[in-house]
Amino acid sequence: MKAAQVTGYHQNLELRDVDEPKITGPLDVVVKVGAAGVCRTDIHILEGQWAEKSGVTLPYTIGHENAGWVEAVGDAVTNVTVGDKVILHPLMTCGLCRACRLGDDVHCESSRFPGIDTHGGYAEYLLTSARSCVKLDDSLEPADVAALADAGLTAQHAAAKAASALRPGDACVIIGAGGLGHIGIQCMKAMSAATLIVVDRNPEALELAGQVGADVTVVADGTHVEQVLEYTGGHGAEAVLDFVGEGGTTSEGVRMLRRAGNYYVIGYGENIDVPTIDIISTEINFIGNLVGSYTDLQDLMVLAAQGKVKLHTARYGLDECQRAIDDLNAGKVRGRAILIP
Amino acid sequence: MKAAQVTGYHQNLELRDVDEPKITGPLDVVVKVGAAGVCRTDIHILEGQWAEKSGVTLPYTIGHENAGWVEAVGDAVTNVTVGDKVILHPLMTCGLCRACRLGDDVHCESSRFPGIDTHGGYAEYLLTSARSCVKLDDSLEPADVAALADAGLTAQHAAAKAASALRPGDACVIIGAGGLGHIGIQCMKAMSAATLIVVDRNPEALELAGQVGADVTVVADGTHVEQVLEYTGGHGAEAVLDFVGEGGTTSEGVRMLRRAGNYYVIGYGENIDVPTIDIISTEINFIGNLVGSYTDLQDLMVLAAQGKVKLHTARYGLDECQRAIDDLNAGKVRGRAILIP
Amino acid sequence: MKAAQVTGYHQNLELRDVDEPKITGPLDVVVKVGAAGVCRTDIHILEGQWAEKSGVTLPYTIGHENAGWVEAVGDAVTNVTVGDKVILHPLMTCGLCRACRLGDDVHCESSRFPGIDTHGGYAEYLLTSARSCVKLDDSLEPADVAALADAGLTAQHAAAKAASALRPGDACVIIGAGGLGHIGIQCMKAMSAATLIVVDRNPEALELAGQVGADVTVVADGTHVEQVLEYTGGHGAEAVLDFVGEGGTTSEGVRMLRRAGNYYVIGYGENIDVPTIDIISTEINFIGNLVGSYTDLQDLMVLAAQGKVKLHTARYGLDECQRAIDDLNAGKVRGRAILIP
Amino acid sequence: MKAAQVTGYHQNLELRDVDEPKITGPLDVVVKVGAAGVCRTDIHILEGQWAEKSGVTLPYTIGHENAGWVEAVGDAVTNVTVGDKVILHPLMTCGLCRACRLGDDVHCESSRFPGIDTHGGYAEYLLTSARSCVKLDDSLEPADVAALADAGLTAQHAAAKAASALRPGDACVIIGAGGLGHIGIQCMKAMSAATLIVVDRNPEALELAGQVGADVTVVADGTHVEQVLEYTGGHGAEAVLDFVGEGGTTSEGVRMLRRAGNYYVIGYGENIDVPTIDIISTEINFIGNLVGSYTDLQDLMVLAAQGKVKLHTARYGLDECQRAIDDLNAGKVRGRAILIP
Repeated sequence: MKAAQVTGYHQNLELRDVDEPKITGPLDVVVKVGAAGVCRTDIHILEGQWAEKSGVTLPYTIGHENAGWVEAVGDAVTNVTVGDKVILHPLMTCGLCRACRLGDDVHCESSRFPGIDTHGGYAEYLLTSARSCVKLDDSLEPADVAALADAGLTAQHAAAKAASALRPGDACVIIGAGGLGHIGIQCMKAMSAATLIVVDRNPEALELAGQVGADVTVVADGTHVEQVLEYTGGHGAEAVLDFVGEGGTTSEGVRMLRRAGNYYVIGYGENIDVPTIDIISTEINFIGNLVGSYTDLQDLMVLAAQGKVKLHTARYGLDECQRAIDDLNAGKVRGRAILIP
Repeated sequence: MKAAQVTGYHQNLELRDVDEPKITGPLDVVVKVGAAGVCRTDIHILEGQWAEKSGVTLPYTIGHENAGWVEAVGDAVTNVTVGDKVILHPLMTCGLCRACRLGDDVHCESSRFPGIDTHGGYAEYLLTSARSCVKLDDSLEPADVAALADAGLTAQHAAAKAASALRPGDACVIIGAGGLGHIGIQCMKAMSAATLIVVDRNPEALELAGQVGADVTVVADGTHVEQVLEYTGGHGAEAVLDFVGEGGTTSEGVRMLRRAGNYYVIGYGENIDVPTIDIISTEINFIGNLVGSYTDLQDLMVLAAQGKVKLHTARYGLDECQRAIDDLNAGKVRGRAILIP
Repeated sequence: MKAAQVTGYHQNLELRDVDEPKITGPLDVVVKVGAAGVCRTDIHILEGQWAEKSGVTLPYTIGHENAGWVEAVGDAVTNVTVGDKVILHPLMTCGLCRACRLGDDVHCESSRFPGIDTHGGYAEYLLTSARSCVKLDDSLEPADVAALADAGLTAQHAAAKAASALRPGDACVIIGAGGLGHIGIQCMKAMSAATLIVVDRNPEALELAGQVGADVTVVADGTHVEQVLEYTGGHGAEAVLDFVGEGGTTSEGVRMLRRAGNYYVIGYGENIDVPTIDIISTEINFIGNLVGSYTDLQDLMVLAAQGKVKLHTARYGLDECQRAIDDLNAGKVRGRAILIP
Repeated sequence: MKAAQVTGYHQNLELRDVDEPKITGPLDVVVKVGAAGVCRTDIHILEGQWAEKSGVTLPYTIGHENAGWVEAVGDAVTNVTVGDKVILHPLMTCGLCRACRLGDDVHCESSRFPGIDTHGGYAEYLLTSARSCVKLDDSLEPADVAALADAGLTAQHAAAKAASALRPGDACVIIGAGGLGHIGIQCMKAMSAATLIVVDRNPEALELAGQVGADVTVVADGTHVEQVLEYTGGHGAEAVLDFVGEGGTTSEGVRMLRRAGNYYVIGYGENIDVPTIDIISTEINFIGNLVGSYTDLQDLMVLAAQGKVKLHTARYGLDECQRAIDDLNAGKVRGRAILIP
């Protein structure tokens, strides 16, 4: 089969002929890839940033946001059958450790991450586990949802946490209306009656934010902290979801936070650097957010099937994979790029 | 001032001239009534059903769903000022007992209930407490929301509990699309992404239910339990909100419930009568629901201001109070009847 | 190997020579049985009460509270290795359905129950799943804990739910200080600072209850509801854990409950039969309780290893299995009977 | 009456004759002071560190940890009567703002803080509010508990949050076994079955920690992070309660934390300074902790009455107030110093 592989760092992806994956374990599932999201992390992989952390040996196939159709299943697979439409949770988890048994499988003690530390979905077929397969509703197609499998799932996971702590009319600031923030706004809107205040430097992104659920939009022009405070009667917001995490957003975001408020750390780059005296005197919390669990992905697919979470996509053939990455790097992709093998 | 009073049981309400209420305590608030909801409980009061329970002495003014404008305030009142538009929580609570201190003021150890055990709002002015006053958003008028103060608040309270336990796509059956159920549907829709399955005997009520948020409507025609089971893949629903509680709904409702599901008891009349073996083998819960707390009423007013909870009203003058009650008794009121003094 | 089998209903157990179980599936585990609890359910099985419900074909080996040492493991087992001391969760669960993925494996859509619907632990060896194996602390032996695997786990599960909702000094009534109640008291004491009021007909059981953590003991002599109310200042208790569920305990228990209190249904026999008006006017809840999850069993083993949950046992050889059952039926067993193969 | 007042910064306290406080408001309560805790904050006040923040005008009476007997009450006071033994919540809260109505009174929008921004308890009598009065159990005396009113309440509040998220055997690191940590250990032990690992530089403090509930004690000798990791199987602890918050504890504490763990910030001094990439990749949380609410203080008094929280005290007369402060400053006080007027 064809697969887009990393053959060396600081080189282009290479389209190669490789063996199709085979079922060897009882929970193995082979998926015919229907679509694979192209993500900024793929650029970082090609730049070698993940080489040491992942410990992967080259060449290997990337692509960690995958959806498609079940092609073959192992003996012990009971949750999907051949022909099912599926989206794949980014992690392959063990199912036996304490975290998996608690439903918190993202913290599995021995997970694998296809597209990062083993072969991913920039290929015609992908080997995964029954534990990663979420069946799709009839109304959804792999190409519609593949790009939600990792970035979207992270947004959904953070939004679900935030929504569970917010009451109607509580103010929720969303910093960053880009790829993740855009999904986060839609998830928050679907799961809560909080008032969504979206902050971004880009007026166009804010316009789109307004269309998908932002109640208030604020251009990050230097007066944005004051604008948020003014909008919240001087008190600040009950929650801040920071999808940026660099360029000063964290210190600005903390200033936007109400007493006893929750700061959700999602984007990353800079440090959270706050005096403990400020943390205790206002009793604020900082909540870390990784990708969502398997059941979070099920929930996100429900929101997609309900039409409450939508995604713009730009489609590329598998043989156009490098162009997709180049376009992404050049800021030319509107919405999310996906490969259609 | 004019007040519509109960002067004897099994008699009509009587419009009488009485003294205006005065501020005597530090947290007292006198409200100029803008609107008062007419409720089935008022009929029961006139029939004497509450005589013993309330211990009230006649004559007295009824009306327990009130909204209006602050006319005068006691020395210690800091949360409202003269002229504010307010809706009144149905209970006057002490603020000092453990329940009040926990925010669970509905279980206050020494509350009063205007319109039930002391003078209510079928009058030009009403004496209440600062602790009962919720300020209204500029966009809301007393007549728009008065009828939400008790019945609507009960629906909101149950919906908030249910919403906090439901995930996107979980099935939530709502039994009864009448006054409370109608508000419950809107509240659930605003606060969750659950799938709402509304069951009622009346196809017209179901049509309206569909307009305000029901995802699925089921006519209670004898096959409704099976229809709900079929819709939920044979598993039953994660939650049932029973706004009826009589005529067999509780046993039917339990059959609609999924393993580990929650049954919210809101309407009343018959008994919950279920074998303990069934409760433990399916691990289902029965959740009692009284009216909401003060902060629940704040939340409900937020939903109203957001335009997410709306109410049809039929308006009557204070001098038409008996006609309003008669119309209600005769089933002639569409939506909720309110008195405008 | 030797196994104590049901060969016909209304007959004694029969000790037979049967084949040792073999590993055939990837998650299979064969356990050398160290001890198996003898439970009232075993009597019911022999009386044929479970015949239809379990659908089991005779002859088969009973015994559903098992602990021992891992003898052999399938290819995909990563959580235990040969020689490990383990206690077995009573259910063999699929690990792939939504309930399992949420950590709520007790509601697995396709579980098996060794000793009920497939061969159990009254034998030298038992076939189970890796998903059922909880490793024991060095300080614990199979014979110490086997009898906690089902009945004890049920008590722990209910206690964990109750403890999470109780604050220091809240009153928790425990109805029934027998096998389950005895464990429930110890679990509540370990996990909360609630005040434990234990009610039982048997003064000896209450004396023992006092030794393991009851703060107050009340003989069920007809004045017990009033005694509980008096002890709680007339308000009733924040929680009632009913380990009996028959003989009128449920109606008595509800009268002991405070407004907004929780009634945990654990024992079974009679119906919960309560007017909906009483449920809503006091806003009480009824919480169903089945056996605990896999992680609950891990927690219970922690409490056992901490020395906070202890069990009296009476030991019998495998060849004495019928005598053990007869003794249990005759009320001659002090604590829990266990078989040691 | 006699009162120990601040008459100027960088000067000794002065014992002066001042007017006794009088009831003027409906919820006013005058308390005859039975004991007042001497706290490090009192030293900071005398050094002028709070001058600007509190905005208080000199002279004024300090003392913010107070207990005693009710001497007089205002018209609207229903929760205490003259003669009652009481401990006083450190804040006087409004009871009408949203935070108060939610039970989260510590975040009251217009609270006062006797001993900080108005007259405190280093005096024979103290003016407070009914909303601050918690009645004491017969078994407790003001001198036993006064020093728990602020510092102890902070420890209880953080412990209650931590306990609610911990399961039996989860590892909970407590950094700092001084005044607050000492109470925190006792609270954690009373409310959870977590394993308590206490870290301190001082071996004597650790010995005392072991006596009141520490399961493991670790001397902070430079190898303490590694010791904690080793004890937790390399995973780290589910919770860290940091009662120090300076001298590098926060970065050390974060290294002791397990994936998805909670870091409770209680002590203060340095900054929380952690890369966002570390927060999201391990999905850890930082939880701010201020003093507890009114109901937390009720809970703490329950634990004291149950004998589960005890305090060493060193007693001084009111005229010895400066000596008490000097002793505290010189590290000569074992346990907590209290003034007995």
